Amino acid sequence: MQDVSSLVAQAREGRPRAVARLISLVEGASPQLREVMAALAPLTGNAYVVGLTGSPGVGKSTSTSALVTAYRKQGKRVGVLAVDPSSPFSGGALLGDRVRMSDHASDPGVYIRSMATRGHLGGLAWSAPQAIRVLDAAGCDVILVETVGVGQSEVEIASQADTSVVLLAPGMGDGIQAAKAGILEIGDVYVVNKADRDGADATARELNHMLGFGEARGPGDWRPPIVKTVAARAEGIDEVVEALEKHRAWMEEHGVLAERRLARASREVETIAVTALRERIGDLHGDRHLGALAERIVAGELDPYQAADELVAGLTES
Amino acid sequence: MQDVSSLVAQAREGRPRAVARLISLVEGASPQLREVMAALAPLTGNAYVVGLTGSPGVGKSTSTSALVTAYRKQGKRVGVLAVDPSSPFSGGALLGDRVRMSDHASDPGVYIRSMATRGHLGGLAWSAPQAIRVLDAAGCDVILVETVGVGQSEVEIASQADTSVVLLAPGMGDGIQAAKAGILEIGDVYVVNKADRDGADATARELNHMLGFGEARGPGDWRPPIVKTVAARAEGIDEVVEALEKHRAWMEEHGVLAERRLARASREVETIAVTALRERIGDLHGDRHLGALAERIVAGELDPYQAADELVAGLTES
Repeated sequence: MQDVSSLVAQAREGRPRAVARLISLVEGASPQLREVMAALAPLTGNAYVVGLTGSPGVGKSTSTSALVTAYRKQGKRVGVLAVDPSSPFSGGALLGDRVRMSDHASDPGVYIRSMATRGHLGGLAWSAPQAIRVLDAAGCDVILVETVGVGQSEVEIASQADTSVVLLAPGMGDGIQAAKAGILEIGDVYVVNKADRDGADATARELNHMLGFGEARGPGDWRPPIVKTVAARAEGIDEVVEALEKHRAWMEEHGVLAERRLARASREVETIAVTALRERIGDLHGDRHLGALAERIVAGELDPYQAADELVAGLTES
Repeated sequence: MQDVSSLVAQAREGRPRAVARLISLVEGASPQLREVMAALAPLTGNAYVVGLTGSPGVGKSTSTSALVTAYRKQGKRVGVLAVDPSSPFSGGALLGDRVRMSDHASDPGVYIRSMATRGHLGGLAWSAPQAIRVLDAAGCDVILVETVGVGQSEVEIASQADTSVVLLAPGMGDGIQAAKAGILEIGDVYVVNKADRDGADATARELNHMLGFGEARGPGDWRPPIVKTVAARAEGIDEVVEALEKHRAWMEEHGVLAERRLARASREVETIAVTALRERIGDLHGDRHLGALAERIVAGELDPYQAADELVAGLTES
């Protein structure tokens, strides 16, 4: 077992195996987790974290891959965190994303990591920020976090980015559908991918219209741009990079970057604290006690609040 | 302010305003929440809870509405809980679902409720089961819980159902996309809606193929059926009801219904306990303390685990 400080040093030199090992340590909540996190803390805060989200099929992986290429041309080191929704039940992950990323597999300036969702609510909210910290400390200039889907946990992950990119594609549903998917509030930059397909202009127009419905914006406010791309041919990707740089500059000018990072750190602490307390509930009482409470609830003898009181009382008294 | 016991009595008579008031009390975490939950406990456990989930655009609301009609023909009282993903930021909900449900608006045997997601992770995991308890105690024979999207929190809600129905539509993406969306493990019954469209047979075939990939099933195991429907014309809806009844009978025969309800009650208790602890973190420390910790994290002086330790230590010492 290598010691943590030498792993961190190797990760900073860009050695992929050291980065992989560190992410595994933080993902797996290893005994060395705290040592790793303490070692990383002073090295973080340099990476620009970009979240990419959207429904399955809009071309997130292809877009991510094209962005990697664009940033590499600028000489930047890039980390990619591909969050597979896969399944909270099987824990499995499909190969699709990895395959499409194979263009960058031999580039030492790119580090790509797939994360599967965990089998409990808050799993990704807990582990994704830790992996971002590793990539940040390892010297990535840009970290692209690709999340699939439009659920609440994905939105939560998007909120951990400095800048959130929402991808759409023509024919993926009308405006109401997009609004239902809850994407109209989280995007800093919108991308209409597959823009060579029929309906791309209509999708962009409709999106523009719906974004305009928000509250009136002041002169210093950010108006999310809409960029049309054909990621598979790298068309429009430079414009996306430009939009990202503009957003970053705007955030720095208006103190928004610092605000977002503070909010992210607060959520991170809260999530870890709540996870620790949740584990303590398990430790203190064991499944048997919780199971007995559940039986009394199903039998109608107890309501879930009375049961929760019993659990919490046991926790805070001990 | 009416007293809780008279509200509960009126709800059991099927008075929609009493049901609405009770759900508002439990949703809003009112001071009377505990009194309501205690009053409901002995009245619950009779309703059959069916979850309907799938990507935006597959026709969940139309299918839900058609199922309501089918169950009403059987003389059953039906509750509908439409969980809008809307936005964790705006808290807003769109009108679409309500509009499509207007067929049933004047039927006293149907109670329809929309819930918006809350602005925190675990919001729906917390409030949806409480609303289900109200509908159950109010005497609904069947409760249809419609969730939009394929995210982790929607899967979590689906797991609160006795039977989970997953809806697909032709042309919503290939098999890998469906698998990515994490739906292949959660369905007890699959519905390919809009079956009059091109590609419906291919979608059903592919789904059948992918479902066959799971672990080998024993003779007593449940093989999820795939039903083709055109919900807008009520075609295939009787077959869905039949599939649901078969699944229910199978669950009762194999003890699965009791298992699922115990697991649901356990999760409910844990969620309430964790929410209470999370609130206590806020009460004890105030945002200022958490904010100060976040500043030290962003400055690289502290890692999030050390910060979480400080929060938790304060909680359990006091």
